[in-house]
Amino acid sequence: MKPLEKETLHKETPWDDDKFHEECGVFGVFGHEDAAALTALGLHALQHRGQEACGIVTFDEGNFTSHRALGLVDSTFSRKDVMERLKGHASIGHNRYSTTGEPALRNVQPLYGDLDFGGFAVAHNGNLTNAVTLRRDLVKNGSIFQSTSDTEVIVHLVAVSKKKTVIDRLVDALHQIKGAYSLVALTEDSVIGVRDPYGIRPLVLGQLGDSHILASETCALDIIGADYVRDIMPGELIILKKDGISSLFPFEKTQSRFCVFEYIYFARPDSFMEGRSVYEMRKQIGAELASESPVPNADLVVPVPDSGVPSAIGYAAASGVPFELGIIRNHYVGRTFIEPTDTIRHLGVKLKHNANKAYLKDKIVVLVDDSIVRGTTSRKIVEMVREAGAKEVHMRISSPPTSYSCFYGIDTPRTEELLAHSKSVEEIRDFIGCDSLAYISLDGLYKAVGESKRNAAAPQFCDACFTGSYPVELVDSVNHCAGGKVSGMQDRAAQKR
Amino acid sequence: MKPLEKETLHKETPWDDDKFHEECGVFGVFGHEDAAALTALGLHALQHRGQEACGIVTFDEGNFTSHRALGLVDSTFSRKDVMERLKGHASIGHNRYSTTGEPALRNVQPLYGDLDFGGFAVAHNGNLTNAVTLRRDLVKNGSIFQSTSDTEVIVHLVAVSKKKTVIDRLVDALHQIKGAYSLVALTEDSVIGVRDPYGIRPLVLGQLGDSHILASETCALDIIGADYVRDIMPGELIILKKDGISSLFPFEKTQSRFCVFEYIYFARPDSFMEGRSVYEMRKQIGAELASESPVPNADLVVPVPDSGVPSAIGYAAASGVPFELGIIRNHYVGRTFIEPTDTIRHLGVKLKHNANKAYLKDKIVVLVDDSIVRGTTSRKIVEMVREAGAKEVHMRISSPPTSYSCFYGIDTPRTEELLAHSKSVEEIRDFIGCDSLAYISLDGLYKAVGESKRNAAAPQFCDACFTGSYPVELVDSVNHCAGGKVSGMQDRAAQKR
Amino acid sequence: MKPLEKETLHKETPWDDDKFHEECGVFGVFGHEDAAALTALGLHALQHRGQEACGIVTFDEGNFTSHRALGLVDSTFSRKDVMERLKGHASIGHNRYSTTGEPALRNVQPLYGDLDFGGFAVAHNGNLTNAVTLRRDLVKNGSIFQSTSDTEVIVHLVAVSKKKTVIDRLVDALHQIKGAYSLVALTEDSVIGVRDPYGIRPLVLGQLGDSHILASETCALDIIGADYVRDIMPGELIILKKDGISSLFPFEKTQSRFCVFEYIYFARPDSFMEGRSVYEMRKQIGAELASESPVPNADLVVPVPDSGVPSAIGYAAASGVPFELGIIRNHYVGRTFIEPTDTIRHLGVKLKHNANKAYLKDKIVVLVDDSIVRGTTSRKIVEMVREAGAKEVHMRISSPPTSYSCFYGIDTPRTEELLAHSKSVEEIRDFIGCDSLAYISLDGLYKAVGESKRNAAAPQFCDACFTGSYPVELVDSVNHCAGGKVSGMQDRAAQKR
Amino acid sequence: MKPLEKETLHKETPWDDDKFHEECGVFGVFGHEDAAALTALGLHALQHRGQEACGIVTFDEGNFTSHRALGLVDSTFSRKDVMERLKGHASIGHNRYSTTGEPALRNVQPLYGDLDFGGFAVAHNGNLTNAVTLRRDLVKNGSIFQSTSDTEVIVHLVAVSKKKTVIDRLVDALHQIKGAYSLVALTEDSVIGVRDPYGIRPLVLGQLGDSHILASETCALDIIGADYVRDIMPGELIILKKDGISSLFPFEKTQSRFCVFEYIYFARPDSFMEGRSVYEMRKQIGAELASESPVPNADLVVPVPDSGVPSAIGYAAASGVPFELGIIRNHYVGRTFIEPTDTIRHLGVKLKHNANKAYLKDKIVVLVDDSIVRGTTSRKIVEMVREAGAKEVHMRISSPPTSYSCFYGIDTPRTEELLAHSKSVEEIRDFIGCDSLAYISLDGLYKAVGESKRNAAAPQFCDACFTGSYPVELVDSVNHCAGGKVSGMQDRAAQKR
Repeated sequence: MKPLEKETLHKETPWDDDKFHEECGVFGVFGHEDAAALTALGLHALQHRGQEACGIVTFDEGNFTSHRALGLVDSTFSRKDVMERLKGHASIGHNRYSTTGEPALRNVQPLYGDLDFGGFAVAHNGNLTNAVTLRRDLVKNGSIFQSTSDTEVIVHLVAVSKKKTVIDRLVDALHQIKGAYSLVALTEDSVIGVRDPYGIRPLVLGQLGDSHILASETCALDIIGADYVRDIMPGELIILKKDGISSLFPFEKTQSRFCVFEYIYFARPDSFMEGRSVYEMRKQIGAELASESPVPNADLVVPVPDSGVPSAIGYAAASGVPFELGIIRNHYVGRTFIEPTDTIRHLGVKLKHNANKAYLKDKIVVLVDDSIVRGTTSRKIVEMVREAGAKEVHMRISSPPTSYSCFYGIDTPRTEELLAHSKSVEEIRDFIGCDSLAYISLDGLYKAVGESKRNAAAPQFCDACFTGSYPVELVDSVNHCAGGKVSGMQDRAAQKR
Repeated sequence: MKPLEKETLHKETPWDDDKFHEECGVFGVFGHEDAAALTALGLHALQHRGQEACGIVTFDEGNFTSHRALGLVDSTFSRKDVMERLKGHASIGHNRYSTTGEPALRNVQPLYGDLDFGGFAVAHNGNLTNAVTLRRDLVKNGSIFQSTSDTEVIVHLVAVSKKKTVIDRLVDALHQIKGAYSLVALTEDSVIGVRDPYGIRPLVLGQLGDSHILASETCALDIIGADYVRDIMPGELIILKKDGISSLFPFEKTQSRFCVFEYIYFARPDSFMEGRSVYEMRKQIGAELASESPVPNADLVVPVPDSGVPSAIGYAAASGVPFELGIIRNHYVGRTFIEPTDTIRHLGVKLKHNANKAYLKDKIVVLVDDSIVRGTTSRKIVEMVREAGAKEVHMRISSPPTSYSCFYGIDTPRTEELLAHSKSVEEIRDFIGCDSLAYISLDGLYKAVGESKRNAAAPQFCDACFTGSYPVELVDSVNHCAGGKVSGMQDRAAQKR
Repeated sequence: MKPLEKETLHKETPWDDDKFHEECGVFGVFGHEDAAALTALGLHALQHRGQEACGIVTFDEGNFTSHRALGLVDSTFSRKDVMERLKGHASIGHNRYSTTGEPALRNVQPLYGDLDFGGFAVAHNGNLTNAVTLRRDLVKNGSIFQSTSDTEVIVHLVAVSKKKTVIDRLVDALHQIKGAYSLVALTEDSVIGVRDPYGIRPLVLGQLGDSHILASETCALDIIGADYVRDIMPGELIILKKDGISSLFPFEKTQSRFCVFEYIYFARPDSFMEGRSVYEMRKQIGAELASESPVPNADLVVPVPDSGVPSAIGYAAASGVPFELGIIRNHYVGRTFIEPTDTIRHLGVKLKHNANKAYLKDKIVVLVDDSIVRGTTSRKIVEMVREAGAKEVHMRISSPPTSYSCFYGIDTPRTEELLAHSKSVEEIRDFIGCDSLAYISLDGLYKAVGESKRNAAAPQFCDACFTGSYPVELVDSVNHCAGGKVSGMQDRAAQKR
Repeated sequence: MKPLEKETLHKETPWDDDKFHEECGVFGVFGHEDAAALTALGLHALQHRGQEACGIVTFDEGNFTSHRALGLVDSTFSRKDVMERLKGHASIGHNRYSTTGEPALRNVQPLYGDLDFGGFAVAHNGNLTNAVTLRRDLVKNGSIFQSTSDTEVIVHLVAVSKKKTVIDRLVDALHQIKGAYSLVALTEDSVIGVRDPYGIRPLVLGQLGDSHILASETCALDIIGADYVRDIMPGELIILKKDGISSLFPFEKTQSRFCVFEYIYFARPDSFMEGRSVYEMRKQIGAELASESPVPNADLVVPVPDSGVPSAIGYAAASGVPFELGIIRNHYVGRTFIEPTDTIRHLGVKLKHNANKAYLKDKIVVLVDDSIVRGTTSRKIVEMVREAGAKEVHMRISSPPTSYSCFYGIDTPRTEELLAHSKSVEEIRDFIGCDSLAYISLDGLYKAVGESKRNAAAPQFCDACFTGSYPVELVDSVNHCAGGKVSGMQDRAAQKR
């Protein structure tokens, strides 16, 4: 019923497009008088998982209250009047990164519905692979969708379920959806968390005094001084209520396949995931990379800031080559940018990075980065380092080549647009212009994160972006509707997911 | 799925609260390349029917586009980028006046849904008297409401209808709803207009070249130079399509009961309604009032600006007493107001009106106004005229006493709050402080608008606000749910309707 | 020191350009605890004298506080935080109408300077005719101008004066400036009012309890319930202080020449000016016009709303022809407008006025308006009335032909652009397309406002726009610098004055 | 003439208050068709020198154009319409960090004046120590100040100078002012740069094709691909014109005293200053610190992000202790903050930093930071590291204790508020709660930046914040007017400078 009011956001700089992007972060708390404030702080700690929009829904004495906006958590939830409205002891929140240039407020989560049994709000990190197919059936039966978000499918499935309780209806819905999802939901008497059967996206449980917390990462527990209890298990549905927490396991058990890219790039380095320190994982990947692909006579190891820093430290330590900040990042690069004229474009303006010339001149430089997506940024970085006088530039990448799109909640270019899909490592090296290029091997990666090697029969992680081995069926793609039009409204947002 | 983001609007001045308010105006056009621009102009001409919010939905080559906002038509649709987005040859639009202090964007019409057969948008002037009852049933079956507006009930009824065509589904929906409604709808190949069986709210058909137009009033045809064709008939469903216009009459025929208050106050004086000039009707009411309740030795007839002017002209002409602008209105009174301190409040600040002192001193003054709702404004006006030196102040009202709330799309106080509900004319005169007070009689009103007298058995107009004779069943009121909570969300908007 | 930050405002509709415009309104109060609130209310009542911007400066215990903004008084001063900042018992305020399309905040008055003796704020209604010449000299000696407003010249003259007291410095400044001015000023212990030697622009004194008030019109006294004391005399400098009011007459006495157009159009009808009721003057002008230029067999007298109403009432009463609202004005026409496409432009869209068709068909119509500037609006009005079916259209104008620009604070087109400058009455009639056209005669106008006739040797009023007889020397024009560039900054605002 | 319109900005987080702040960055370019775009890019690279406000003034064919705003360079100058207005081949720009909580647009530089010879704009990094004294004299003679900025004194001195040419007038002004200043000015035919006789603040000359550039740091040359030519010399006045560059040396020659804190903290690490790489200087300071104050058995060296990183790298390399990111910074901390409730405040929320727990547990940690101002942040950091399980925490500071306020353009607390002014190192250690604390020695600092030791008789740098040895006379302080009221207007901004 809510036609789209168009809202526009300036897109990130092209350089940022040269990374995969986590699409969402979720947070939930039950049983704390400042539930909304804790949620806002948690979302702030999870800001790296989605910068486009954020929202919080709380429940208090019969009323759900919501505040959602385009923009960062800090500015959205620093207004006193906003926080005072968000009353209640239970709250869920969401950070969102849009996959398209046209985000819309109506797609900002948590989504909410007044259902027969009462209000129901849900926020979701991940992506459903049969959302379009399910949506078509729902619309056929009279459901009216407000957003183009796959999350809304869950709300409608719960609404039309013939089961009685919220939990039974939710389980009914979960049995119909396919994909990767870590979701939090809010009802009149509970906060619910669910992790998909493969546990592709992360979700952890924390505790602060008597209240319980769900969050995408442990850094969201740290910010509020909450204790980490455990990771929600793949396929687990956890219910936080007044009388404590309880769990259901509504799915058949399968081998878990946690997203290995969370270790490589998405997660914050101070988070622990599945019991492992992300920072430590990155250093170990760097060390493994150093042993797989050393650079003889290297003078310095230089991270591509900021994400390359921990693996560069690992590489430097393992190789004995000094670690130096050879590239300085301008931290004031925002969402909007000075648009250069043509004349100025030719100057090769360096809005975001600058070479630390004093350190690069006549040096053999090992550049460490986490991934190469389209290669455009890497090419500029190499050129910049060469202009600063480096004798040789060797690029080392702390992930295997990314050759396949993700359909599980990560914003990636289409498979065809991925540099590594069509080009060999040597061709990529040539495109980027460095003297040598090496990626960590797939088994090296598994080794660095603690496995002896990849179990090809039943891989321990989701590594579809490297291997094309997709654990969950891509229903909509098979039905040729993944990119299908989900609405006659002029809203091109979010259709890819 | 779209939880409320709270938006606030400054309330009108208290003085304005002392009038009934039309709640909506609608407009639709089919077959013109500038459909959105015509709609914006039409809504501008209908601005007096709703100043809180406005919206337009257009259809163009498979896509519906919408723009809705709080605020006036002029400012909302003067932006070039907005108008350029609203492409298409078919368009509907809506002006809205909210009944509560907390309007919300999600209640701004036209409402839109992606239904099984395609997109469907609807805008509505009037009020459904069984909306809450219907809504409960729909929610029970899994429909999710986005707004608190009764109009959304229509969209859901169309969505869940088992009929095949849009028209059949709409008729299916119309058979279930009760109330007063003049609605316009937009589908992929048509603009549809419907007037309720009693024809309580107005709706007219116009023509501009080859394109057809629907509008609440003829002044919306005049602004774009369109010709008036005819009034849509009570109970008529009219379809504007590429191949011309056609009509259905899906209801049993009943005596029509057009809202007589449209003549008294709501409509623009330059409009024609049911074939009658509104300005002429007002002058005749004034003349009838002069003959019913003359003021001996009166020196001047003074309208309470601006709505009292035509009836004051009629009164003056019929009585031979000179017409004078004895009260001057400040036309710069806006939506926001300088908030007086306590000290200043005691000064009796006159933000909106000022006495034209040169003309009132030592005079016997006939003040002509269209209605008295709570009496607070009338009281201030009389006091102001007396302070300016008037010898006697006689108030003449061009409507009968308003003793009952309206449930058919007019914003009125509750019956208990209406001055005339509990007070006699003499008590009202005493409250207002004038020397004499007279309202036009009910039969006098019917006579002035062209009937010989009111047919008590089958009244020719809806005059429920004077008589309590409600033509359409008040289902929700009987079910004790009119004021019921329709949503657990923190949205207190529009629940009254 | 304050370079221009460009601010833009949407221009009024072209139809409004077809009137002269008052440029400013001023208000001042000394000795009231709510000085700022009274000022805001006074400015609200004076809003018709300037709608582009407004400002207030107050003084309280050693500090001057200012708030100035583009926009209407109501919205600017309805914010509680703004009003709470504006502390003090003394206050001055200003409404401004800009003469150009590019107004700038830095030109919004009151202007303020920290001078050697303390703070000094001034607001000004009128125009200096030697401002550019004086400014050049001041800049030569090191004064730095912030605005392009002529008012700033006064502040600098006070700043560089070698006299000791504020009053002596101000008199020193007044002896150097030429032009029309009614100004109010604020110092640490007084509010000062000055009217130029000819008294061209209005300024009145009022009283509210123990506090004294200065205002452009009496309607600004009425709104706060203050009593009118007297008009400030031409050439009078009045000082409001703690110990009462006192006056100086620093100029040689001359014949006063009050602007007669204030009676015709600028002032609010409920104001009294120089002891005369503006509404009464307008009615008398209408009556005089009826006797000078009757229309035989006329069926109705129709005012061009809203300014033509009082003279139309006068014309109708004097001629015995019925007064009718034959043209209805849309009161929701704002500062921004729906921009019509070309197709729509050809439809002759009537954003602001509509013919009241019921009353015009087959009638002989007398249209009464106050002035014709460029004639474009009049032409459209006549065409609209004809289209509505009028048999004959006779235009009567309640001013003599406006053939000369004003240099005394009124926004007029250049002399060359004035229709009456180059065209005869018959040519204007032909351009406008009416059946007959008549203006009131110059002597008729003088008669209507209470003089026996115009004294050609020493005219009782400033009537330069009709006669070209300019009472105050046009120094800058003679120096060929009136349109001269006053600043190298990109600010084209306000240079004309 | 421009009274203050109050604008407010949210203050930075308290943690940020625990650093000194550079107050300004300047940039100028002459002879490039995209002068404004180059300036915007240069200011973007200099954003770390001032984040509160920024502005650009350009000159083009007789007109100066200005755009100034509160906010970051990126958002201010990313609007196409803004950039298109800023036409011309010559341009100057400024970044500003305010010293008070109430910044005002009127204080945003460049400041501009229309002087007798034409327009004159100036932007200034530094602080005048006799500004209040000079201002008093200027006001006495009729100058009217618009801002509370000391920079405006320069404009007025140029305006009232009796010299003929701009350059002579500027030199005249420079002979009267005292303090630290690197300024850029714009006239109708030149861009001018001046560095004070001591060269306290930086200013460099660059070249891009045929155009010349002035900038506070070399990183502003790098961003646009311009070549670094040389540092402007202390006491040099350089003029960039169509026919090339020329220099004057209007002051007696003195020993230069460049601000040593630029090396320690203010400047960007990729800049070169006075021929030295800032990153290299920081690493050397870290190395020197390691040799002066080693930590026996340390397990890791952890920088306080982000400014402590280079010196921590230097410390780690020199000591052989591994460098680790033991503290992770949240890069999404903005200008506004989620305001914690009291309950939440007690949780010790970590908005900006989080401990990287995996690395700190049971470790002997060397924390490296650049300075301790009030000590509040250091205390929280130490506590956080201890909570994460560190066995011992040793703090090493890469500057000597900051015991004195800066009066030369750096925002510091008053001397009394500086922790090191009243507390011994042991007392500070106790306050901060670390196991040991050591600052680099003054001579160690001099040694690290390339001198053999500090020359006490004629120090090579300005190190007043460590030693209290102020090179330039503090005139206003002596006159007891530094904190004096400079304006009766309600503007508390910037009075400290």
